[in-house]
Amino acid sequence: MPPGGDIWIGDDAAVVTPASTGRTVLATDLLVAGVHFDESLGTLEDVGYKALMVTVSDFAAMGVRPSYALVSIAAPPGTDVDRLGAGLAEAAGETGCVIVGGDLAQSPVLVLSTAVFGVAETGGVPPMLRSGARPGDHLFVTGPLGRSAAGLRLLRAAAANNKTTTNTTTTTTTTTTTTASTSVDPSRPPVPDLVRAHRRPVARLAEGEAARRSGVGAAIDLSDGLVADLRHLAEASGVGADLDTVPAAEGATRDEALSGGEDYELLVATGSPDALVATFRAADLAAPLPIGRCTDRPGRLTLGGDPLPPGGWLHRF
Amino acid sequence: MPPGGDIWIGDDAAVVTPASTGRTVLATDLLVAGVHFDESLGTLEDVGYKALMVTVSDFAAMGVRPSYALVSIAAPPGTDVDRLGAGLAEAAGETGCVIVGGDLAQSPVLVLSTAVFGVAETGGVPPMLRSGARPGDHLFVTGPLGRSAAGLRLLRAAAANNKTTTNTTTTTTTTTTTTASTSVDPSRPPVPDLVRAHRRPVARLAEGEAARRSGVGAAIDLSDGLVADLRHLAEASGVGADLDTVPAAEGATRDEALSGGEDYELLVATGSPDALVATFRAADLAAPLPIGRCTDRPGRLTLGGDPLPPGGWLHRF
Repeated sequence: MPPGGDIWIGDDAAVVTPASTGRTVLATDLLVAGVHFDESLGTLEDVGYKALMVTVSDFAAMGVRPSYALVSIAAPPGTDVDRLGAGLAEAAGETGCVIVGGDLAQSPVLVLSTAVFGVAETGGVPPMLRSGARPGDHLFVTGPLGRSAAGLRLLRAAAANNKTTTNTTTTTTTTTTTTASTSVDPSRPPVPDLVRAHRRPVARLAEGEAARRSGVGAAIDLSDGLVADLRHLAEASGVGADLDTVPAAEGATRDEALSGGEDYELLVATGSPDALVATFRAADLAAPLPIGRCTDRPGRLTLGGDPLPPGGWLHRF
Repeated sequence: MPPGGDIWIGDDAAVVTPASTGRTVLATDLLVAGVHFDESLGTLEDVGYKALMVTVSDFAAMGVRPSYALVSIAAPPGTDVDRLGAGLAEAAGETGCVIVGGDLAQSPVLVLSTAVFGVAETGGVPPMLRSGARPGDHLFVTGPLGRSAAGLRLLRAAAANNKTTTNTTTTTTTTTTTTASTSVDPSRPPVPDLVRAHRRPVARLAEGEAARRSGVGAAIDLSDGLVADLRHLAEASGVGADLDTVPAAEGATRDEALSGGEDYELLVATGSPDALVATFRAADLAAPLPIGRCTDRPGRLTLGGDPLPPGGWLHRF
């Protein structure tokens, strides 16, 4: 229920009273069926959950808490919108964000757009931007990478195997050949953690807040993959970057860790690495993982001394 | 250019500093090609313009100025997004709203979602809601109705005529027969004002502000048509309504005025009709048009003593 005088769903617009005033943060993201998600590899609840979480992740990257969300759903006739709504509500509940309005329309293809609003408290540290990194800054990520891409790979292998064994037992050998190239045994069930990372990505809000509090100068959320998003951050800041290591998650390949995307871990650049580590420890968060340093060579990104390939997550479906 | 410290396009989220603090208003709307607009009857600039204007119209209905907008565009490959952007920018310029962020993705069908944010200044009159009408209140609309629907009819007749004369001269008689039923001569060009009303609807921001200032208790923008939106307002307020008259625009039919939709005029209910008229006059706005009164018979809507039919504008494409 909205507090006194506020209006959520049901009028021409929502009327809300933010708990604090100050710099206001606004972000929006769009998910399109067949482009950003494969409806056959998850539930509608997953789709709703992810649609809100990816926008909230933009807030994590700024170190700001989200307050309110608007949701637009364009859906084919017969779509179980309540299940989308359940996933959206779950993500809203987990991130402290209230869905105060939206719009719903028919469409030949399922499209979800979420717009999120929050207030960066006054008197505090400014929101973290992509452009705040300086040469010499230490680069960290908030967790091991490639989980979402690995989860997607496992889901696809399982789907392919399922289809093959259900429809035509004669082609089982073909399936084995195909999946061998990705080192997956389709007879084993997908690893739940990796699959969950793909279906239910979690915005690193607490990590983003802690990083901002510790004085981090620049941050970005890893939606497109480490290589692509590191490039975004480096370009916005006018720096280069030398990486020593890339922490791949258990079960993820090196390529998935480098370019898989959709991990929604944060990449931060800080001149005060000790403060970052201490702030995370004090907040009872998993230690941030050091991966390298920023340099004064704009445009140059290396890993172990070798240039990083271009690329990232580009609408893989 | 954003003022100092603010960030518009280019980071994970936009950071803005609202000019005033207080109740915050949030609204979103969705346009889907083939559902809300026919791409063959207008330009991409029209689509962009309308996509933002319909959401701003929700602000007009509250009597609140919009400040910032986020835009999500899902578009088929090859769509000239710059033309959509030009229309969006035009609507933003006309309504004093700044587009501070957005998202763009590929999609099999063109979908635009706009989310708009504004602040209802503190110390002032509260935003107008749908639920504020009381029995005895006088009902007004801010202009004659049915223009958008009439414009759409003319555009369709012109398109049909164009197609017929271009492709098959033998079926010209059929065309004449078809269009006779709507009293349109397809050899005449569409009336520019009506066509413009359909392609470039204008949110009644000044009228909404004046109405709010005059103490109007309830308002709604006429997006679905007078009958449907009057029903929304009456139901939210728990009142009935007796209409004396429905002001049809020149060139619009009575049905178009009643149920055409997309006029984006405002319907207001006020206990102080003289104050409303005086405030509009002082603000140099066209006089609001009286159409009837609210009653203490919830659920009952009449026009000239006869029950109003159900219905309204329901995704006519």
